[in-house]
Amino acid sequence: MSESPRRRIPEAALGRLPIYLRILVELGHENVAQASSEQLAELAGVNAAKVRKDLSYLGTYGTRGVGYEVQFLTVQIQRELGLNQAWPVVIVGAGNLGQAMANFTGIAERGFHIVGVVDKDESKIGTQVGGVSVTHVDSLTQLVQLHKVSIGIIATPAAHAQDAADALVRAGIGSIMNFAPTILSVPRDVHVRKVDLALELQILSYYEDCRNGNLREVPTDGRINPVSA
Amino acid sequence: MSESPRRRIPEAALGRLPIYLRILVELGHENVAQASSEQLAELAGVNAAKVRKDLSYLGTYGTRGVGYEVQFLTVQIQRELGLNQAWPVVIVGAGNLGQAMANFTGIAERGFHIVGVVDKDESKIGTQVGGVSVTHVDSLTQLVQLHKVSIGIIATPAAHAQDAADALVRAGIGSIMNFAPTILSVPRDVHVRKVDLALELQILSYYEDCRNGNLREVPTDGRINPVSA
Repeated sequence: MSESPRRRIPEAALGRLPIYLRILVELGHENVAQASSEQLAELAGVNAAKVRKDLSYLGTYGTRGVGYEVQFLTVQIQRELGLNQAWPVVIVGAGNLGQAMANFTGIAERGFHIVGVVDKDESKIGTQVGGVSVTHVDSLTQLVQLHKVSIGIIATPAAHAQDAADALVRAGIGSIMNFAPTILSVPRDVHVRKVDLALELQILSYYEDCRNGNLREVPTDGRINPVSA
Repeated sequence: MSESPRRRIPEAALGRLPIYLRILVELGHENVAQASSEQLAELAGVNAAKVRKDLSYLGTYGTRGVGYEVQFLTVQIQRELGLNQAWPVVIVGAGNLGQAMANFTGIAERGFHIVGVVDKDESKIGTQVGGVSVTHVDSLTQLVQLHKVSIGIIATPAAHAQDAADALVRAGIGSIMNFAPTILSVPRDVHVRKVDLALELQILSYYEDCRNGNLREVPTDGRINPVSA
């Protein structure tokens, strides 16, 4: 770890780093060695100037006419995002979504390790979910201390999400990923990221509405989903 | 529906409309009648100029010193996103994630109606998921035609996601929401939105890494999760 303090990255730029990272990992799998800011921009759906600005927060500027070294930039973003270490994670809610998250290979591959799944439903206690045994939500503090957990996932119904958040905060969790479609009240030093599973559907309905009614000019240059095109 | 063609909305602005919409719906629940671009900006984590620019694509400009009418703007964004009609949706994959999506109230509330869940696992066929009976993936074309479905959700493991996409495209689906951590190959006129369930975790690990190592200046003004603060 560096001795000197790194610059704070603006939230919007920070939000794009995982997107660049995913693109870079995919390029790496295709044995692509270099990528220009224009290429990265096209794949990320932003403009090249923004890519260069975002990456400049990492102190990296690429080489004119060559671009960025894919492998080096991958490691650099991983390091910036704190992904050069394993993160133990607990999940509150052993329903379908909690089970899906616990079993999701894409999480483990990115360095997140599910060390506990808790629920208050007695019928779920003791069942195996993603390699761990579901325990009662009352065991949360013990789990968090034992595994030094700092990130929790709320996968409960909306009506139980605030209770889940309170339990996570009491247990000492500093960062919460919330799937429940509800607003959580947490202390100011606790970070909450909300995941809205319907958001992308609302973007697709826009495009379908365009297609059906011909009411708007629909982009057909492949930029809508460049990564998949 | 309007007679005149609406303007094409840039993809980045389009991606923020569902976020403004969620904020406006929440403000509406709190009986807030007006919201300034500054308020919306703070809640959405962008700057006020961007909010005004984004909303200008809808032909709406707010009133100086008053801001935007919450109810009116809510309806306007819903209409722009094509949410003034119900969208029938099919889900490919009846595993935990498919079940979670089929049961997710936040989807139905936003006008998306799950009309079918398909799987190729014989043991799942006939089981009830989110109010529908799981059918074989071979019934996809029939389902799509019967219910005039244009949006499909891929909730399969990564290894089966391309097969799922091919089946959806053959069935005539024009828009796909993909949860599988894989790149899909689809015709150019098919829209794919990828949902990365690990993305938000990677942003939280950044903040936790900052907190642990004090390596970066961490914002503590509540803007990280303004909606929950």
